[in-house]
Amino acid sequence: MAHLMEDEVFMAFTTYATIVILKMMLMSPMTAYYRFTRGAFSNEEDVARKSSEERKKLLRTHPDVERVRRCHQNDLENIIPFVVVGFFYTLTGPEFSSALLHFRLFAGSRILHTISYTGALPQPSRALSWMMGMLVTFSMTYRVLSTVILL
Amino acid sequence: MAHLMEDEVFMAFTTYATIVILKMMLMSPMTAYYRFTRGAFSNEEDVARKSSEERKKLLRTHPDVERVRRCHQNDLENIIPFVVVGFFYTLTGPEFSSALLHFRLFAGSRILHTISYTGALPQPSRALSWMMGMLVTFSMTYRVLSTVILL
Amino acid sequence: MAHLMEDEVFMAFTTYATIVILKMMLMSPMTAYYRFTRGAFSNEEDVARKSSEERKKLLRTHPDVERVRRCHQNDLENIIPFVVVGFFYTLTGPEFSSALLHFRLFAGSRILHTISYTGALPQPSRALSWMMGMLVTFSMTYRVLSTVILL
Repeated sequence: MAHLMEDEVFMAFTTYATIVILKMMLMSPMTAYYRFTRGAFSNEEDVARKSSEERKKLLRTHPDVERVRRCHQNDLENIIPFVVVGFFYTLTGPEFSSALLHFRLFAGSRILHTISYTGALPQPSRALSWMMGMLVTFSMTYRVLSTVILL
Repeated sequence: MAHLMEDEVFMAFTTYATIVILKMMLMSPMTAYYRFTRGAFSNEEDVARKSSEERKKLLRTHPDVERVRRCHQNDLENIIPFVVVGFFYTLTGPEFSSALLHFRLFAGSRILHTISYTGALPQPSRALSWMMGMLVTFSMTYRVLSTVILL
Repeated sequence: MAHLMEDEVFMAFTTYATIVILKMMLMSPMTAYYRFTRGAFSNEEDVARKSSEERKKLLRTHPDVERVRRCHQNDLENIIPFVVVGFFYTLTGPEFSSALLHFRLFAGSRILHTISYTGALPQPSRALSWMMGMLVTFSMTYRVLSTVILL
């Protein structure tokens, strides 16, 4: 079994996939941080210790919290396809340099995307970083389907 | 490593998993398309070039956009379990014809689901296509757990 | 190909990953159950048979439905990273007892999380069960990145 981990394309894929998944996971504590600092919760039990007046005020949405949640959602929608298609792509035996280029571009694009989104940078920074990530996954999808199609 | 890709069940799984992931990814540009044509955005920086009056009008939700987003969310909730369980199922060494039937039914059900959802077709078209996809994944789950349980 | 399924760490991973994915999938019928019993739908075609007065009443959000949906979303945000990182972790060849401990803690934490969330149990039950799951995944991430980093 261990011999998958001796392949350098697979090792690179493991590294970059783990990094982008880790990045995605960090959106959860970030959401929690904004919920506490902005005072915006969605569950009654989260504000149970407060007085009933305060509770009503705290059970609300806040633009900063919603922004982080949209960024997290966009990660789910883009990073998971990358991991799935990237795994198949790795198994098609691509050139190491070409694979590395795909993985690096994707990881870079998602980090830029998070910065653009959470920092509310002027467009088209967010749109371009999102598009770069999509293009990388489409390029890998093309190689997978053109190598191993069996319908 | 390449010998996974010589197995015909794995090749079929790769093909269908990539197709449903690709279908899921296409919901993102579709959301963007509806956001622009319906004029319904959720980020201030997306409407920064407009006059301040127009901006307020454009920062809203629109039923058509929300519909595509719910469809995308349903994809995440159903396609990812299919990919994960389908991978384990493939490794349990099922009959090729049986595996192909599972994969085809699932891909078909999700394409029907997307058409039913985005086209707002009368029920139970959406409910039935969703249920067919769930049943395929449950069937694969049953085989996985009855073959390789180790608690 | 079948030899992955002869490795006991991989068999344990398959078992627990399938269980948590199955748990996540069951949130969909649970949402449907609450939508029907609470009378809270989001699509016009779902209430098409009702009179137009009833329709307006039924197209609404309900706290119980939203709670289940938030729980489902939290599953997506936590269970998928576990499955991806857990797969790489399994391939790094960890001790069987250590791997089993990780998988059991994670599955237990997510079941507790679902009970805490859907039952609206007093905090910090939900926060702690969520954190336990995150820590398990971080621990596996650490092992993966310290074993096979290739940037």
